[in-house]
Amino acid sequence: MPDLAAIHHIPGTAIRGQIEAVFTAWGVPSETAAVAAEALADADMHGVDSHGIGLVPMYDVRRGEGRLNVSAVPKVVREKAAVALIDADKSLGHPVSVMAMRMACEKAQHTGVALVGVRNSNHFGAAGYYARLAAKRGMIGMAMTHAPGSAIVPTFGRDAVLGTNPIAFSAPAKVNQPFALDMATSTVALNKVRNYYRRGKQIPLGWAMDESGQPTTDPGVGYKARRVAPVGGTRELGSHKGYGLAMMVEILCAVLTGAWAEPGEVDAEGRPVKSSTQTGHFFLAIDPNRMRGGDEFGQDLDRMINMLHAAEPADPRLPVLVAGDPEYATFAERTKTGVPLPQSLLDEVRDVVSRCNAPWMLG
Amino acid sequence: MPDLAAIHHIPGTAIRGQIEAVFTAWGVPSETAAVAAEALADADMHGVDSHGIGLVPMYDVRRGEGRLNVSAVPKVVREKAAVALIDADKSLGHPVSVMAMRMACEKAQHTGVALVGVRNSNHFGAAGYYARLAAKRGMIGMAMTHAPGSAIVPTFGRDAVLGTNPIAFSAPAKVNQPFALDMATSTVALNKVRNYYRRGKQIPLGWAMDESGQPTTDPGVGYKARRVAPVGGTRELGSHKGYGLAMMVEILCAVLTGAWAEPGEVDAEGRPVKSSTQTGHFFLAIDPNRMRGGDEFGQDLDRMINMLHAAEPADPRLPVLVAGDPEYATFAERTKTGVPLPQSLLDEVRDVVSRCNAPWMLG
Repeated sequence: MPDLAAIHHIPGTAIRGQIEAVFTAWGVPSETAAVAAEALADADMHGVDSHGIGLVPMYDVRRGEGRLNVSAVPKVVREKAAVALIDADKSLGHPVSVMAMRMACEKAQHTGVALVGVRNSNHFGAAGYYARLAAKRGMIGMAMTHAPGSAIVPTFGRDAVLGTNPIAFSAPAKVNQPFALDMATSTVALNKVRNYYRRGKQIPLGWAMDESGQPTTDPGVGYKARRVAPVGGTRELGSHKGYGLAMMVEILCAVLTGAWAEPGEVDAEGRPVKSSTQTGHFFLAIDPNRMRGGDEFGQDLDRMINMLHAAEPADPRLPVLVAGDPEYATFAERTKTGVPLPQSLLDEVRDVVSRCNAPWMLG
Repeated sequence: MPDLAAIHHIPGTAIRGQIEAVFTAWGVPSETAAVAAEALADADMHGVDSHGIGLVPMYDVRRGEGRLNVSAVPKVVREKAAVALIDADKSLGHPVSVMAMRMACEKAQHTGVALVGVRNSNHFGAAGYYARLAAKRGMIGMAMTHAPGSAIVPTFGRDAVLGTNPIAFSAPAKVNQPFALDMATSTVALNKVRNYYRRGKQIPLGWAMDESGQPTTDPGVGYKARRVAPVGGTRELGSHKGYGLAMMVEILCAVLTGAWAEPGEVDAEGRPVKSSTQTGHFFLAIDPNRMRGGDEFGQDLDRMINMLHAAEPADPRLPVLVAGDPEYATFAERTKTGVPLPQSLLDEVRDVVSRCNAPWMLG
C-alpha cells in the first residue's frame, strides 16, 4: 500500500500545466483555463496550500452539481467612470476576478481610484493573488470575497452565520516586494482546527466554539460544530472587531453586488439560494501617482518596510516581519525545490484527471 | 473639596456650544468651529467618551505648542475625477475631514467611487463620525486615520511602532440605522489599560506588553510601557492580522498622502517630524446606486441586519448586536438624560475656557 503521507516535490510549472489541462478537458476555453491555473499554482508556490491545486477536486464536485458553468461568458452589467459590476455567469472565480482587477486598474489610471464588483461567481482561490496583481501594475489593490459557507459565529451568537470573508491588501514599494496582506476575518480557518484534531492537540481558547456557541479548546468539538471565532477570538479580546470586519466584507462583496442571500433561503423551486454561485467579490484599485508625484509613494513605503524589518524583536530568533514576507520566502524556496504535495492529494487529483481524460502531468 | 468623581448630566447641545465657544475664542472662524464642535459632541452623545469634549484640553496643549493652526485654510493640492488630496495647513482635524468626506461623496455621485486624502492635519476625533456622514447621504463610507503616537507593537516586536490606526466603515440601510463599524486596530486603547490599572484589576493576556515586548496581565506594566497588542492579541490568536490592518491604515493615511515619517525622525531644525501635524486621513465613498438599482442595496442590508438581530445568542441575556447598535442606544439614552461628565473633566475644561475668555456654558 502506498504511503499516503509521502511528500512529492512538484515544480510550479507542472502544477499550473496540470490544472490547465483539467480545466480545458472540462470544456473551459484554453485562455481562461490558463488564467485560472496560474492563480491556483501561484497559491501553491507561495505556500498558501489550502488555496492551490488542492481545490481542484472541490471544483469538480461543483461542476458535477451544475454550480460551475465551464462555458460561462461573464458580462459587464453596469458601468460608470470609476465602477463596474460584472455578472460572472457561474464561471470559475479566478478568470473573472483577474478581469475585474485589471479593469479596476485601467479605470484607476484615469480616475485615480476604481472599484469593480462581481456577482454570480464561484470560489476565486486566494484573495491575495488579485491584490498583488494590482501592486504589480503600480497600483494599491484591495480584494475581498464573501464565502457562502457559514463558519464565523458573530460575537454573542450561538451559530455560524458568516463565511470566513477574507480581506487582501497590497501596495507597491520601489525596492522591496509589495506589501501583501491576505487574511481571513476569522481567527483561523476551520481546516486548521481539523489539523489540530487529527494531531490530537488542544486548540487555544478563542479559535472555535461548540454547538452552544461557547468557546472550546477541544478541536474535535470545534471542527464538528463548524464554528470559528471572528478575529479577536473572544469578546474580551475584541472579537466584535473581527465580526465587524466580516460584516464589512459581506456588505461590499454580497450586498453591493446583489449576491447576498440568507443561509437556508430557497428559490421558487426549493433549491438553496446561498450556494457557491451566489459568491460575490470586491476589487478596488488606487493609483498612488494620482495622489503623490512620481516615485514618492514607493520610496516612503520602502522606508516604512525597512523600519519594521529593522525593528527590535522581542525574541532575537523571531524577527519582525511585514505582511507578505513568509509567502515571498516560500516562493523563493519552492522555485528551487518545487511544491511539496502529499501522496493523498496527488491521488485525489489523479482521480479527477482520469475521469475527465486529461493527461497526467505530475510524475 | 468638590467630589472629582461626581457625575453631571449635560445636554449635547450645551457641550457642542461650549466647544464651539472655545474654538471661536482661540480664533477659529465660527463656521469651522461649529463643524468641529458638532463632530466632538456627536462622539459624547454616542458614548465614545474618549473622543468628545474630553479632547479639548489636549487640543489646547497642541495649540500652545504651535502644532495647531487656528487660522488654517486647507487647500486641495491635487485632484482627478475620483480622487483629491488636501493639505490641511495644520488645521483642526474635524472640519477638513468633513470637507474631505463631503467631497468624496460628491465625486462618487458622478464616478461611483471616490477617495480624498488629507495630510498635514491634526487629530480628527472619532473616525466613525465621517463614515456615518457618508451613510447619511446614502453612500457607503470608509474613514481612517493614522495616529502619530506609537502604541501598537508589531507581531514579534519589542517596541511600539504604529499608532492605534482606526478603521471606520458605514453603510446605509433602508429601515435600520446605518451599519457603523469604528474600531482601533489595537486590541484595546491604552486608556482602557490605564482604567484597569486605576481600578487595580488584572488585564487579559493579549491586551498589552511589558518593555521587553512580552505579553503581560499587569495593567500598570502595560500602561507604563505604552505598548498594546494589535487586534488578535497574541501571535497564536492572529495578532499578525491586526498588525497587517494597522499597516494598511498607515499606508493609506500616511504613505499615500505624504504624511509619513519615522518615529524619532527630525527635520532640518532638529524638531520631530512625526508630530500631530503629520497626521494623515483617508476617506472613501461608494455610491451603491451606481452598482445596484434604486433601493435594492438598502433593502438587502436590512435583511442582513435583521438576520443578525434575530440570530440565536449563546447567552439569552446577551443578544447578537450589529456594529453601531451600542452607540445608537447610548445616543437615544443621552438625548433624554444628557451626557454624564465627571467633575474632574469639567474642571479641566473650565480651566481651558477661562484661559481663553470663552463663556462658561456647562452649568
